[in-house]
Amino acid sequence: MALVNENFLQLTENYLFADIAKKVNAYKVLHPRQKVISLGIGDVTQPLCPSVIKAMHKAVDEMANADTFKGYGPEHGYAFLREAILKHDFHPRGIRFDPSEIFINDGAKSDLGNIGDILRWDNLVAVTDPVYPVYVDSNAMAGRAGINRDGQWSDITYLPTTAENDFCPELPDHGVDVIYLCYPNNPTGTVLTKAQLEKWVKYALKQEAIILYDAAYEAYIQEPDIPHSIYEIRGARKCAIEFHSYSKTAGFTGVRCGYTVVPKELIATSMRGQSVALNHLWERRQSTKFNGTSYISQRAAEAIYTPQGQSEIRATIAYYMENAKIMRETLQEIGFKVYGGVNAPYLWVRTPHHADSWAFFEELLYAAGVVCTPGEGFGPSGKEYVRLTAFCDRQDCLEAMSRIRNMVSQTHHKAAQATEKEE
Amino acid sequence: MALVNENFLQLTENYLFADIAKKVNAYKVLHPRQKVISLGIGDVTQPLCPSVIKAMHKAVDEMANADTFKGYGPEHGYAFLREAILKHDFHPRGIRFDPSEIFINDGAKSDLGNIGDILRWDNLVAVTDPVYPVYVDSNAMAGRAGINRDGQWSDITYLPTTAENDFCPELPDHGVDVIYLCYPNNPTGTVLTKAQLEKWVKYALKQEAIILYDAAYEAYIQEPDIPHSIYEIRGARKCAIEFHSYSKTAGFTGVRCGYTVVPKELIATSMRGQSVALNHLWERRQSTKFNGTSYISQRAAEAIYTPQGQSEIRATIAYYMENAKIMRETLQEIGFKVYGGVNAPYLWVRTPHHADSWAFFEELLYAAGVVCTPGEGFGPSGKEYVRLTAFCDRQDCLEAMSRIRNMVSQTHHKAAQATEKEE
Repeated sequence: MALVNENFLQLTENYLFADIAKKVNAYKVLHPRQKVISLGIGDVTQPLCPSVIKAMHKAVDEMANADTFKGYGPEHGYAFLREAILKHDFHPRGIRFDPSEIFINDGAKSDLGNIGDILRWDNLVAVTDPVYPVYVDSNAMAGRAGINRDGQWSDITYLPTTAENDFCPELPDHGVDVIYLCYPNNPTGTVLTKAQLEKWVKYALKQEAIILYDAAYEAYIQEPDIPHSIYEIRGARKCAIEFHSYSKTAGFTGVRCGYTVVPKELIATSMRGQSVALNHLWERRQSTKFNGTSYISQRAAEAIYTPQGQSEIRATIAYYMENAKIMRETLQEIGFKVYGGVNAPYLWVRTPHHADSWAFFEELLYAAGVVCTPGEGFGPSGKEYVRLTAFCDRQDCLEAMSRIRNMVSQTHHKAAQATEKEE
Repeated sequence: MALVNENFLQLTENYLFADIAKKVNAYKVLHPRQKVISLGIGDVTQPLCPSVIKAMHKAVDEMANADTFKGYGPEHGYAFLREAILKHDFHPRGIRFDPSEIFINDGAKSDLGNIGDILRWDNLVAVTDPVYPVYVDSNAMAGRAGINRDGQWSDITYLPTTAENDFCPELPDHGVDVIYLCYPNNPTGTVLTKAQLEKWVKYALKQEAIILYDAAYEAYIQEPDIPHSIYEIRGARKCAIEFHSYSKTAGFTGVRCGYTVVPKELIATSMRGQSVALNHLWERRQSTKFNGTSYISQRAAEAIYTPQGQSEIRATIAYYMENAKIMRETLQEIGFKVYGGVNAPYLWVRTPHHADSWAFFEELLYAAGVVCTPGEGFGPSGKEYVRLTAFCDRQDCLEAMSRIRNMVSQTHHKAAQATEKEE
């Protein structure tokens, strides 16, 4: 009799964005003429840059000819892309890796979800709170999360990350084995300085823990002294795996390409105390359960690293960051407390009067026709925040800000009227 | 202290095709002028068909324009592709599914590797012997395989599939929970008739077992009464998950697209006896650990289902099957026992005089410059067989057959001389 993996049965039924989509659909049915502006799900809106389009057409043409046709590629990706990554993403920061330490994938979500395959089921896992749900759910599926009580898992260590601690989580007060860090952070849009990240690397080295470092948004960093890679920190190659994505860097959410760095110096331990290099285990995992990324997507990614490609993707990033600036400034001006949005395309906005994030989500939707993501969807520490993304069209960004401004002034107006009546 | 998944430590160090590549490289160093013809790894050689190329260019162009740009797609694939699949791969055979029972992926290997995520770690697994190594290795990683003794796992039930039982495995003599079947078979190139497959479906229904049915080569079936899908068998939707790939159907080994069917009627059980629909679990798994397949690859797959696309891919399949025919006829003529190659692009060739498959691999390489895959790489029942693929260029196919013919006649000549001398 086939038995299911019962860890799945404890997962909550619906995924955050599915819940949001349902609520938005309900609103649309009631308000068919209102244009809804989504600042919710973190998907890009601007098209792929010309260098990428050109490279993809060329790759497609290669597939049309027996002499240039590409069948199975290496499971870990083509050398042309791994080498471009080393040369552009790491060498300029003084970081040296061998190409065999770079694994090309079909997007960071796959590797973030699958990386647990190489780790024992009973490692103690720590995540920041709020957090990207994939980290927690993928561990829950493997039995690492324990018992689910109202969405909180008994065996996960949550590290609150809020305005109260300046969005810099405290080290856990007990030993943990695996730590997920995402900087620039999704959902808060905040960053860690080098000194703050150093604290984590030191902790991991001391505990012989592994940091799973999600750097999906590193291309959005504007300020100096903010590390783009955890490997800028001394010792990190002995304790960290780093996940990169082209989804936000170059608008690849529909193209599917990213990469993971698993340094050869990174060691974990067997129950018998044997030291095991995780690079080799991940290679074995990928060779067995993955057959490489689309050749066309890999050529697309390579094109990002040309001088022309770099200039084009930087222009798009600047466009989104100008949206973020407009949003930050508008929201602050009308009285919101806003975090993030300086080195990341996300704004983390405190709800007014400690409103619950789902309640404020509904208010924004019904009073302004704007979709945000309720912070509670990312964890209990998000319950008085909402996330807004800057990945919108400029026109939508301006329109959304204008609507929220009106909403606030009307609310003030109503509040003023109410006060007058009471007087 | 981070602990590794120790199940990985029992896996044998090298992957079959890596071993072969090493031996071939060694040969090439010694014989730099000899052209080596590979009939080893099952990769295609013919370019993508014009309909697919056209669809991919169009999809790339859509990505260049904000109005037609596609970001994140549905994790389970676009409706246009799921519906084309239902309409072309299932409706003509009288099989009805809902689109939500079809999951688009980046290739069958990923889903075959990951499907175990939704099953308990202690299900008893049966595989045919010989077998595609991914089935076994992915279960070993999850702890389902037990102890590895000389490449054989203590908790895996191996079902010998050889000329002696006409390549139709016997039902296991004990209850198993999960059964991998691949037909047309990789590596043997043999098939099951409807009646033979029915026996397996009945067994699975009785045992409440699940059949993981790998149909990657179904497009190569030429004869009637050979099922293209396990769902042609009554009751199969209650006991089977089916894996499809465009890799061999349309040369997508570098494009990365396939699909998996998880019927809603398919139920497994929890330890408490609760019935659980696997469709929902797989959806949850994919939503968490996968972000969909490249939009361009999905449009490429859709193009296969147009009348023009169908006619083009059928021409390429006919080309490969003509190779298979040439190979079968030549090898039989010069005295080899050959199986498969009628409804599949693989030939399963018995080694002469019960030679060990690795020894015959070396003989073919050194005496003919032809690369095969030693049957032992697929399991102990393959140790007196080698696999040849018909996915070659016609010229290479003819040249390889001519070289093997020469090799055999020289061996006969030498044997005759030896016999003469002895006399």
